[in-house]
Amino acid sequence: MDPNFKTSAFFQEWINFVYQLQNEICFALETVDNSHKFVEDLWQRQGGGGGRTRVLANGKVIEKGGVNVSFVHGTVTDLMRNQLKINGEYWAACGLSMVIHPFNPFAPTFHANWRFFELYDTQQNVADAWFGGGMDLTPYYIFPEDAQLFHSEIKNAMQSFGNDLYPNFKKQCDAYFNNHHRGVETRGIGGVFYDHLRPNDPNGMNQNQLFQFQKANAESFFKTYIPILQKRKNQDFTDKNKYWQEIRRGRYVEFNLLHDRGTLFGLKTHGRIESILMSLPPTVRYDYNFQPKPGSEEERALNIFKNPKDWV
Amino acid sequence: MDPNFKTSAFFQEWINFVYQLQNEICFALETVDNSHKFVEDLWQRQGGGGGRTRVLANGKVIEKGGVNVSFVHGTVTDLMRNQLKINGEYWAACGLSMVIHPFNPFAPTFHANWRFFELYDTQQNVADAWFGGGMDLTPYYIFPEDAQLFHSEIKNAMQSFGNDLYPNFKKQCDAYFNNHHRGVETRGIGGVFYDHLRPNDPNGMNQNQLFQFQKANAESFFKTYIPILQKRKNQDFTDKNKYWQEIRRGRYVEFNLLHDRGTLFGLKTHGRIESILMSLPPTVRYDYNFQPKPGSEEERALNIFKNPKDWV
Repeated sequence: MDPNFKTSAFFQEWINFVYQLQNEICFALETVDNSHKFVEDLWQRQGGGGGRTRVLANGKVIEKGGVNVSFVHGTVTDLMRNQLKINGEYWAACGLSMVIHPFNPFAPTFHANWRFFELYDTQQNVADAWFGGGMDLTPYYIFPEDAQLFHSEIKNAMQSFGNDLYPNFKKQCDAYFNNHHRGVETRGIGGVFYDHLRPNDPNGMNQNQLFQFQKANAESFFKTYIPILQKRKNQDFTDKNKYWQEIRRGRYVEFNLLHDRGTLFGLKTHGRIESILMSLPPTVRYDYNFQPKPGSEEERALNIFKNPKDWV
Repeated sequence: MDPNFKTSAFFQEWINFVYQLQNEICFALETVDNSHKFVEDLWQRQGGGGGRTRVLANGKVIEKGGVNVSFVHGTVTDLMRNQLKINGEYWAACGLSMVIHPFNPFAPTFHANWRFFELYDTQQNVADAWFGGGMDLTPYYIFPEDAQLFHSEIKNAMQSFGNDLYPNFKKQCDAYFNNHHRGVETRGIGGVFYDHLRPNDPNGMNQNQLFQFQKANAESFFKTYIPILQKRKNQDFTDKNKYWQEIRRGRYVEFNLLHDRGTLFGLKTHGRIESILMSLPPTVRYDYNFQPKPGSEEERALNIFKNPKDWV
């Protein structure tokens, strides 16, 4: 890697946004938790770059939550050429990745990721660049009003950038966050998922509009997850509810370790293991052939995971 | 698949042995547990064959244990040709697969698998056949006397079939049951692991000797795990010990979902999910960046997983 390597000025703006976003998200979550603070780990990547991992554990509301920022770069390897289908000499990526596992089984788990990728030729000119991201909700019990709020606020955020964006990215999300080895059984109630958003692709946005689109999505976090977490954090629950949450968290682990491309690629390319696996839920249960009682709330939730539905 | 399909007579003998072995193993484990019995699920496989899954859950000693027998057969698919590097028209496989997760963190988890595979040509003549198997121990705390008993009894069982078998298969086991994404960190203290044992291979055994070799290995279970479980099942422990067990169980899940060929192949080929995933531990904990205290028993165990050693 050339020691004089520099990203584009546009990329620098994105980096600034992402670090600022991490501050705002952590502050909002600490306010809802109202007991613990995020603990920060700064780390360097051997091949280039590094990150700022922030974790909040054993809070009153947040049992385990991670909000990670990384800005990493390096030389394009064969593994990347094959798996990511990219071509170029150098690459750089910067994004925010977060997973929040609340203690209360009526409060859903939240996951989001917003990222930007640049590829450079041998002269270190930008050869390609794209955005990717999305967010999804994993409730253990389904409150239709929460699901509707979540999806409608995301839809609102996307609407002004194009009418087909939300429906397309919602569909992609249901298809992606699925435990394929179980047929159709989504991890939760989805949200949106998108990748390879390039300027002037079918979506018709230029790079600045794509940046604004990412911003609008990211900022919908404050209108979706924060009020839902606030509403559910103190709801009374039983041991049976907690048990079901831990069973479903088992499916979360199944998805992340068997199917999640980011996790598997990160582990293969020797990313920082603890930052990658911070997504795993704090306590998990694997029962042999667990089946919810017919007619129960647990069965109702499972039926929705098996038949993903439109919420708005 | 030809409805008149028949395995060899030799295969039938193996099937009988495996079903009988399941009975004996379950009986021995129920005797040690002394509170609960195994519950049985018979299942059919759509492509051919089926199995007898037996699970004991929430026993006084065994928190979750499965002892599964399956005899499955079918037409060779492209996926099998590619992944298993086999050639033929029909295949049949029969084996016993087991995982025992005790409640007591001083009692180790045990895993074993003994299997036989036959391949047939279009005339349904046997075209190829091999044995595979092994067993390994996953303690949470290391008692050198338990580790030595485990390894020396396996070595004894193998000795009369060839001097180099135990050392070779011990090495293969350490290499296989490793969480590669963490560098060198084995799942436990190993045991033996072998595959593709064919008559007159370098090992020099004919098919009957290979059968006797499998029998001797399988029967060492009664001299290894049963006395170890008996010895540790009532040892006093603290919440801190249980916590460490659950952290290490997290690594067990990581191995099974990220690296275990049997698990991944089973899920890809639409095996019976509940029988495949019964191997996952009952309760598991994922902490961000958990590190055992310097000088602690937990750190001593971790150091052994990072530097696999010879026990006999």
